[in-house]
Amino acid sequence: MPNDPPFLTPMYQDALRDHGVPAPWRFGMADRVRFHELDALNHVNNATYLTWFETLRVAYLRTYEVYEYVPGDPLLVMRAVTVDYHAPLFLGETYITTGRTTRLGRTSFQMAYGVFVEGTLRVEGTAAIVLLAPDGRTGVPLSDDKRDILIRCDGAIPR
Amino acid sequence: MPNDPPFLTPMYQDALRDHGVPAPWRFGMADRVRFHELDALNHVNNATYLTWFETLRVAYLRTYEVYEYVPGDPLLVMRAVTVDYHAPLFLGETYITTGRTTRLGRTSFQMAYGVFVEGTLRVEGTAAIVLLAPDGRTGVPLSDDKRDILIRCDGAIPR
Amino acid sequence: MPNDPPFLTPMYQDALRDHGVPAPWRFGMADRVRFHELDALNHVNNATYLTWFETLRVAYLRTYEVYEYVPGDPLLVMRAVTVDYHAPLFLGETYITTGRTTRLGRTSFQMAYGVFVEGTLRVEGTAAIVLLAPDGRTGVPLSDDKRDILIRCDGAIPR
Amino acid sequence: MPNDPPFLTPMYQDALRDHGVPAPWRFGMADRVRFHELDALNHVNNATYLTWFETLRVAYLRTYEVYEYVPGDPLLVMRAVTVDYHAPLFLGETYITTGRTTRLGRTSFQMAYGVFVEGTLRVEGTAAIVLLAPDGRTGVPLSDDKRDILIRCDGAIPR
Repeated sequence: MPNDPPFLTPMYQDALRDHGVPAPWRFGMADRVRFHELDALNHVNNATYLTWFETLRVAYLRTYEVYEYVPGDPLLVMRAVTVDYHAPLFLGETYITTGRTTRLGRTSFQMAYGVFVEGTLRVEGTAAIVLLAPDGRTGVPLSDDKRDILIRCDGAIPR
Repeated sequence: MPNDPPFLTPMYQDALRDHGVPAPWRFGMADRVRFHELDALNHVNNATYLTWFETLRVAYLRTYEVYEYVPGDPLLVMRAVTVDYHAPLFLGETYITTGRTTRLGRTSFQMAYGVFVEGTLRVEGTAAIVLLAPDGRTGVPLSDDKRDILIRCDGAIPR
Repeated sequence: MPNDPPFLTPMYQDALRDHGVPAPWRFGMADRVRFHELDALNHVNNATYLTWFETLRVAYLRTYEVYEYVPGDPLLVMRAVTVDYHAPLFLGETYITTGRTTRLGRTSFQMAYGVFVEGTLRVEGTAAIVLLAPDGRTGVPLSDDKRDILIRCDGAIPR
Repeated sequence: MPNDPPFLTPMYQDALRDHGVPAPWRFGMADRVRFHELDALNHVNNATYLTWFETLRVAYLRTYEVYEYVPGDPLLVMRAVTVDYHAPLFLGETYITTGRTTRLGRTSFQMAYGVFVEGTLRVEGTAAIVLLAPDGRTGVPLSDDKRDILIRCDGAIPR
């Protein structure tokens, strides 16, 4: 396995496999644990992983041109998340966060996330996400173009 | 409903009912949304709720004398969490976070959490928690005294 | 000294003196240290205090009707801050954050902040704040009414 | 100016100059603004910069072998910080945080920090830092070796 993955840069299928991240992950980004992400137990705090998934999600949705995070966009809102913690992370460790879309609704989609250290899955999670109009209530449909991207790139299963 | 609950102070069954929090919740604490808990969408960020559950958990476990958060304690480690977001929270809103233990294993327990605003459940969640020795691997059993507290006070179901 | 100050509620001159906070502080709010505010050294992280000052500032400016934190407001932007750390804070400690306006410019003002535990100043700070138009560049003057409030209530010195 | 600096990797004098960071900065690290670092004003929150300085400090002190952030180390404690905000940062911007030691006491030292975007200083700060024994009170002297490093590499001025 190469020593260090490229930090803060989208990694695709080949680069992920080179760094020990197995199929079916096709999008990831490397980062390093910072001091402020630790809690008093000296490991990464449980809430921090939702922030890592959020950072990955922004890069993923911009790269796939599904969501731009600019004014005028519909609101991208979490409906539900889960996190499973298999092993802790510590100061200075290099990790790769991965994300993919697993299911597609009309105005919503489900993503899965992973946190890998040297090819080992330490933490994983999911998020159910919905696109809402500025009123915060009305669902906004994903365009066919965007649905196609998520189906083609990630094998997302339409509902 | 009384105007404001007492902030940052344990609320038990009667006080919770007075402020619109339904059974079976028996432990809660009121707080107010702060500016730094908002994200760029101007509502409370999705990761913040895990922090609120953590704050509630510390008060709950200390009040019930289950866990003290002092040096020498076994490690209290999250195994899994879930959060369901029903409606957003905004700057300055007063909310009551609630927590209870739902299941009891030998070295682990499951908690449920809620976030109520004027009696309406806006967000809820769960956490699977395990007690570990300083090695971070070996489970540490809950004493019978502590199991009794959680069964008697919360109706936790032993496994 | 009374046991516990009222949490998350504006405290004025008399209540502050009752809880050991000396003149010239005339506005404060009590809170309690949370687990997620600690870092790996087991004390409150140095960056957290800027967040506490921000929380106090929101309450202070809303109470004094100087700034409402609603859409359409000018931007309230930090130009400079300082923090002096005299002694650490630990999990569960009750503290009172205080704030006052010390100087007034045309489109800017300077605030001072304190963090008191049982009457002892543990941390203090300052912030130079400017009001900007939505373009983020043009200063927006404070109205005479608002200047009067800050001069009358806090003894802020106009420039 | 090259397009992107190397992320999360120490940059020394030549690499910094290549990316527009002027003398006398000799240590820096590139990073990118994340969604959770924004506040409701849609720019990086004022407290976040202290966290960036902390992340830079950990890398700097480990690289210069002055402080290792491992158990048994003396405590590294902030005595005072300042931040000057010249211009805001926004989602996705690439920045370089820089740090250097400016003054050296017996048990303390003063650092300066900068945040550069494409060669422009957006934010700068300072920190007065002290090394303490586990009692949190007694100062621990910096060894002559470590003082020499800071004097030789950064031109720190001994007191």
